Amino acid sequence: MEKKQLVEQIFAKKSFLCVGLDTDIKKIPSHLLDEEDPIFAFNKAIIDATAPYCVAYKPNLAFYECLGVKGLVAFEHTVEYLKALYPNHLIIADAKRGDIGNTSAMYARTFFEQYDIDALTVAPYMGEDSVTPFLDYANKWVVLLALTSNKGSGDFQLMENAHGERLFEQVLRKSQEWADDERMMYVVGATQGRMFEDIRKIAPRHFLLVPGVGAQGGSLQEVCRYGMNQECGLLVNSSRGIIYAATDERFADAAATQARQLQEQMAVELDKI
Amino acid sequence: MEKKQLVEQIFAKKSFLCVGLDTDIKKIPSHLLDEEDPIFAFNKAIIDATAPYCVAYKPNLAFYECLGVKGLVAFEHTVEYLKALYPNHLIIADAKRGDIGNTSAMYARTFFEQYDIDALTVAPYMGEDSVTPFLDYANKWVVLLALTSNKGSGDFQLMENAHGERLFEQVLRKSQEWADDERMMYVVGATQGRMFEDIRKIAPRHFLLVPGVGAQGGSLQEVCRYGMNQECGLLVNSSRGIIYAATDERFADAAATQARQLQEQMAVELDKI
Repeated sequence: MEKKQLVEQIFAKKSFLCVGLDTDIKKIPSHLLDEEDPIFAFNKAIIDATAPYCVAYKPNLAFYECLGVKGLVAFEHTVEYLKALYPNHLIIADAKRGDIGNTSAMYARTFFEQYDIDALTVAPYMGEDSVTPFLDYANKWVVLLALTSNKGSGDFQLMENAHGERLFEQVLRKSQEWADDERMMYVVGATQGRMFEDIRKIAPRHFLLVPGVGAQGGSLQEVCRYGMNQECGLLVNSSRGIIYAATDERFADAAATQARQLQEQMAVELDKI
Repeated sequence: MEKKQLVEQIFAKKSFLCVGLDTDIKKIPSHLLDEEDPIFAFNKAIIDATAPYCVAYKPNLAFYECLGVKGLVAFEHTVEYLKALYPNHLIIADAKRGDIGNTSAMYARTFFEQYDIDALTVAPYMGEDSVTPFLDYANKWVVLLALTSNKGSGDFQLMENAHGERLFEQVLRKSQEWADDERMMYVVGATQGRMFEDIRKIAPRHFLLVPGVGAQGGSLQEVCRYGMNQECGLLVNSSRGIIYAATDERFADAAATQARQLQEQMAVELDKI
């Protein structure tokens, strides 16, 4: 998907919501466990219920890999379902890959050829040749980790060099030599507050994928205040707050309600542009 | 596997070789493509041929994931085969995972519970709570990226803070607060030469997993000169140089020859301790 199309979707739907499909077999409603593919049955219901209110879905690979072959099949079914019924929704595989060139090329082949997914989260630690193989695909996105939402983000990402530039800022700056804002996004945690101002100084036009609203405690209003740009420039993700809003048979309706509430808040923020 | 047992294996076999199972369906001998599971058939032959000369195997997940369900099955078969027939060989899953705590916990469940693998490579960018979930398992190892073998390792890993400490040195130092040398190893590329001296100043007792000998151009003798400690402290990996030594029906014999040559060089180095 091109950036232009993503921006159009956001303004048409008045939403920059990404729904995180962190589907844990131990947390889905028990009545689904009788299904042939309980994870896919859950995802399908969540997707059908939330699609009007979001522009992207983000399956988190960890939750599928932990079930082995069954998990991988559920992941494949989910991607196929999204591509068939909701082709205007961006699909982000949250896998945080990154390795030496020939290995990153294999991961790129997996996600961008085999699954034909739109975007993949990538870890920057190994530098340029670990990231560029993912940039060889037209209309596919690298979503590079910059400043993450977790407590440990402070351990290395905030390290300053002699000029006072922090590691995440170097990642933002250096990676712009590899691709522009039509091919790369950055992960910035919703818990980072005013740090979005510093990020926008280096990456004013890039889309930011923002996890951490909801279960992790980030504020949507604060993210928008400091991080939004003229094209919106934000994809705000919520996983647990939406998909586990209820744990009984009403789970899909409850997810829709949560997604709609977020979308309504997002519409207010978009009107400020 | 405990560190003590690994050290015993190394001195008993006079080898600290790790064979990387980067098995690419496009590179294996064509006669294997008729097998029900060509990747496993290749791995099985490589393992049987090289087991006397190595102490560890390192399947690279990228090469299995890119085949979808078939690849995952081949990976599972390979792990099961190693555990059944070669229980004294360390199995390192090279997957370079790392995410927020609840997601890293899912990856840990996958590799340490479901597959019961001995060690997993982990990326440090997201800090403490992205790594510690992997440390909750007895006798399992985190192999943390420190200074990698690729060209891009210079992009961020060599960044210096105001005190002249580089990022990879901070990773080495900080991560020792999370686990000691009985639970953690570090990835250091064979291409890094005398940098091993700097690493040994901070991590004198840790095992280092060393890729980059062979196809990537690193020197075994140089790695040993600057990186070896009294317990050996090295696992030197070779992937392509061994498993693709020949591409016809003699591939397993050729792999054994390459592995034995490396083992013989390693025996010379171990005698210097």
